[in-house]
Amino acid sequence: MKTLLLIGIGAGNPEHITVQAINALNRASVFFVLDKGQATEDLVRLRLEICARYICEPRYRVVQVSDPQRDSATPSYTQGVEDWHEQRADVFTRLIAEELADGECGAFLLWGEPGLYDSTLRILDRVRANGCTHFDYEVIPGISSVQALAARHRIPLNEIGQPIRITTGRRLVAEDLDNVVVMLDAHCAFEAFVGEDVDIYWGAYIGTVDEILIAGKLADVCEQIKTAREEARQRKGWIMDTYLLRRVWKP
Amino acid sequence: MKTLLLIGIGAGNPEHITVQAINALNRASVFFVLDKGQATEDLVRLRLEICARYICEPRYRVVQVSDPQRDSATPSYTQGVEDWHEQRADVFTRLIAEELADGECGAFLLWGEPGLYDSTLRILDRVRANGCTHFDYEVIPGISSVQALAARHRIPLNEIGQPIRITTGRRLVAEDLDNVVVMLDAHCAFEAFVGEDVDIYWGAYIGTVDEILIAGKLADVCEQIKTAREEARQRKGWIMDTYLLRRVWKP
Repeated sequence: MKTLLLIGIGAGNPEHITVQAINALNRASVFFVLDKGQATEDLVRLRLEICARYICEPRYRVVQVSDPQRDSATPSYTQGVEDWHEQRADVFTRLIAEELADGECGAFLLWGEPGLYDSTLRILDRVRANGCTHFDYEVIPGISSVQALAARHRIPLNEIGQPIRITTGRRLVAEDLDNVVVMLDAHCAFEAFVGEDVDIYWGAYIGTVDEILIAGKLADVCEQIKTAREEARQRKGWIMDTYLLRRVWKP
Repeated sequence: MKTLLLIGIGAGNPEHITVQAINALNRASVFFVLDKGQATEDLVRLRLEICARYICEPRYRVVQVSDPQRDSATPSYTQGVEDWHEQRADVFTRLIAEELADGECGAFLLWGEPGLYDSTLRILDRVRANGCTHFDYEVIPGISSVQALAARHRIPLNEIGQPIRITTGRRLVAEDLDNVVVMLDAHCAFEAFVGEDVDIYWGAYIGTVDEILIAGKLADVCEQIKTAREEARQRKGWIMDTYLLRRVWKP
């Protein structure tokens, strides 16, 4: 039997890591790093720094592979993701077969929380469905950017006894505006709601030295966020940002 | 200036704690523990165990106070919570004035994530609004029971690119059933939806030695969960449970 560990390593601050995750890092002898190209070199480097900082006996090896890119030209978003997951499942199957010996333990270091907008669990399901079943796996939760955002702005995620919605930029709709956290928004979806009476709590690279935090009435800070976001994206070559929208007044 | 640290300590497993939280524990010289009576004696003990385990120099003191109880007889839920928060704000103001010297650092150890269904941040806002402003505070995020639930069941919290809702037992409605995490449900609100084609992933005391996990089609496991829940609650005197409901088929 082979073991895979899906380790949540937090949202960028290396001190977000849990004791459970550190113990998991120290069980693994192979780390799989999926390289998405130039833009995420920083993210690969940050992962290796976490290994160097928290692993007691540096006898591990790192296997870096090119991550298949999602074909954004596929007309259906879901189909595009399905095809991409199938390609990644092939990569994972090969890694398990060729890079992990029987009895060995391999790990994926995942940003944030493995259960939140991360495809690794789904791809492992597919790997199993495709007939590669001689491995077990464990999930180690991690601090998500949602939590890091709330902590840095020192706000509760929910209002008293009220629900919270977490969604993506492409799914954000007016009905969500009472209280919604938005992730994976490459197109400043908040701008469409600049006429609404909502507060925004925005953050990028949260918990890192590049952290930017902006909060205020959306109408007041919308342009400021767009400018800061674009400037940072240009400078660093990539951006990870998250925000909470909350209606100021409710009937 | 005085400093308060709101430290998320995870959902029950003492290894859920982050390095950031451990560093925060070691900065504090006073720990405030709000005692809610007999039923939560275990929870107070678990907090003290975390202090003992992770604090290097045991020179801290623990201030245990009785937490005011929410008057559930108040007709309006929101008003009941408001009154309760005001009473707690009085307690916090007294703690800051009497138990924390100038320049000293005090901490609250909070289960799960300080931003998620926890009132401490809101109460500190009220303390400030009431005129007690000679303190600063920081929030340290922690692993929530939502994340611990998903990790132990090894499931993603969201479906591909879809939103997630987090709500309370009393707010759960049929429209949520596509994909919803329910917290703070003392009355098995899921039972009302036993006729719907949904899967449930349920967990209690997640990450502790008492952990119970049950998953399956709601219709199949509803009674099993109710029985396990009641038996555990009777035996231990309290229960903390969380679950995810997910519609099996979607149009």
